[in-house]
Amino acid sequence: MDTLTVELGERSYPIHIGRGLLDEPAWLDQALKGRRAMVVTNETIAPLYLDTLTRTLARTDTGPVETVILPDGEQFKNLQTLDTIYTALLERRLDRGAVLIALGGGVIGDITGFAAASYQRGIDFIQVPTTLLSQVDSSVGGKTGVNHPLGKNMIGAFHQPRLVLIDTDTLNTLPDRELSAGIAEVIKYGLIDDPEFFQWLEQHLPRLLAREPEALAFAIRRSCADKARVVAEDERESGRRALLNLGHTFGHAIETGLGYGRWLHGEAVAMGMVMAARMSCRMGWMSESEVARITALISAAGLPVEAPPGLSAARFRELMAVDKKVQQGRLRLVLMQGIGRSLVTADFDPRALDDTLEALAHP
Amino acid sequence: MDTLTVELGERSYPIHIGRGLLDEPAWLDQALKGRRAMVVTNETIAPLYLDTLTRTLARTDTGPVETVILPDGEQFKNLQTLDTIYTALLERRLDRGAVLIALGGGVIGDITGFAAASYQRGIDFIQVPTTLLSQVDSSVGGKTGVNHPLGKNMIGAFHQPRLVLIDTDTLNTLPDRELSAGIAEVIKYGLIDDPEFFQWLEQHLPRLLAREPEALAFAIRRSCADKARVVAEDERESGRRALLNLGHTFGHAIETGLGYGRWLHGEAVAMGMVMAARMSCRMGWMSESEVARITALISAAGLPVEAPPGLSAARFRELMAVDKKVQQGRLRLVLMQGIGRSLVTADFDPRALDDTLEALAHP
Repeated sequence: MDTLTVELGERSYPIHIGRGLLDEPAWLDQALKGRRAMVVTNETIAPLYLDTLTRTLARTDTGPVETVILPDGEQFKNLQTLDTIYTALLERRLDRGAVLIALGGGVIGDITGFAAASYQRGIDFIQVPTTLLSQVDSSVGGKTGVNHPLGKNMIGAFHQPRLVLIDTDTLNTLPDRELSAGIAEVIKYGLIDDPEFFQWLEQHLPRLLAREPEALAFAIRRSCADKARVVAEDERESGRRALLNLGHTFGHAIETGLGYGRWLHGEAVAMGMVMAARMSCRMGWMSESEVARITALISAAGLPVEAPPGLSAARFRELMAVDKKVQQGRLRLVLMQGIGRSLVTADFDPRALDDTLEALAHP
Repeated sequence: MDTLTVELGERSYPIHIGRGLLDEPAWLDQALKGRRAMVVTNETIAPLYLDTLTRTLARTDTGPVETVILPDGEQFKNLQTLDTIYTALLERRLDRGAVLIALGGGVIGDITGFAAASYQRGIDFIQVPTTLLSQVDSSVGGKTGVNHPLGKNMIGAFHQPRLVLIDTDTLNTLPDRELSAGIAEVIKYGLIDDPEFFQWLEQHLPRLLAREPEALAFAIRRSCADKARVVAEDERESGRRALLNLGHTFGHAIETGLGYGRWLHGEAVAMGMVMAARMSCRMGWMSESEVARITALISAAGLPVEAPPGLSAARFRELMAVDKKVQQGRLRLVLMQGIGRSLVTADFDPRALDDTLEALAHP
């Protein structure tokens, strides 16, 4: 087992990564301290892992464990589903000392985290991410929230978990498409500021796709460490943290434009990174050969490198205008000056954006 | 004009109290710094003060001001109304740099504050409270939130405003019943830890009821200062801050039991303080004569000193069990060891609670 600490002062918390951690009560016991817990999961994950987790929780000092099972999918990451969690908490009389446990992917983590942030003005929560994407992304950083019909992740809070438990065995049941979606975020960390990791991925991608436990554990740990470093420097995203949105402004436009759930988040981010790379190249910041390496790796991971049909360049621009990265009416983008050298900037040629969108969009 | 600073480190903010402040652009200009603003108000307040505020905002550096007008009443302080605010923010393309301005009473302040806390994971907001209750209560302390059908204020966040602007002239249009409801919270500050203020209120209550500007300004300032002192010591309510809930655990049971909006919040708190006094007396902590003084002052303020019909002692207990002051399954109450000597405790004789409820409830 490997442990990583996210350093955030009094909000610091450990991430444990290893095989079979769902069967080990020690870490949960330490975090729960005998308090009442409610597990939030979904209809896909419950039959796979809820029994195991419940049995393990029964071996801790906590009392009987409550559960709430949500429908599966990004389209349910909304205020109505959030209300289901509040209702369950209130019906079962969970008080301010209670702890929520998110068992599932990013949607479960985000919505459970926001429920914890806002129930009785804030209770503790624990993340047990079961998808590669949530293990490398949502388990670090404390971003929680739900979608609004007019924009993704528009409602939420910063709320750090007390503990993240990553059992890499849970990846054995992950569908191929979702494994690939997780690899998109893994590639992102290489592109942001870890060129050595990017090279490792170019060499070892087949091992990840074959789900070799050691390769997966290495990639997860490296991704979490890369992300934790950025978050520790800028918890509330006033500056550097925005780098983590590489591919996301384009990607969110795709997700919102197609309707949530059509493309997986990781797929949209993958395409978003291709778009950011092409735009960076168009501005002369990045070479054609680097764009080719990025596109090749993303494509080899089974991820899209072509924009989805049905979204015009104009629609892209419209959707990007409501992105959270817009400040004082100015769009900020994460672009690249090379592999592993990303930057956040509002200082780009708007024509380069227009030309990139025109060249890539399939109206 | 009088200014009070709520000291919370980097979250410190000023409260300006005085006549005609709604017409003065200087403070708003200072807080807005040219950023886009959206005023949230309700159907009762909009015809009275929205034009004035909009005209004043037009004299600041901020751009065109958006507004959203909600229905009036505690029964609309819920997730659905909150969604109306999110939708307005998104439709009008307000970004992370935008500022919400709450113009109205406690409901408007609480819901607008939570919208600000959760829109794009947190934007700035300004409070312009127009009721006595919101001026002395919700404008200090950063508690924001909405109700759930199963419990009052169960969903929310701590989010401090950047500025509170209290124009005492707005009290001229306040209905008598709401003025009295505000006085309930004013009396509360005397009871918690300011016996001198309680005495002042016994002497000067008629001046408040006659809406004498000087008396109102004094009572508002003193209440805000009393509250700010407690909040500065314990922003997140881990200890001492719970004193501010004097009368609230009983009061919330009344509000939830009757259905939101039947009794005003201040009315329920007034009755809750009578119940806390009677229970404290039953435990031998407080004299009969002090209970009589408290009851007399509350009654003279036009507030209820009898429990509402229809709520049995058993129903009271049930409703109090979901209160946020419950920790690890143990109910904590704010009781009194005398006027101006309140304390938070789980260490009380449960029979004293039962007997108090049996004696006061009208099933």
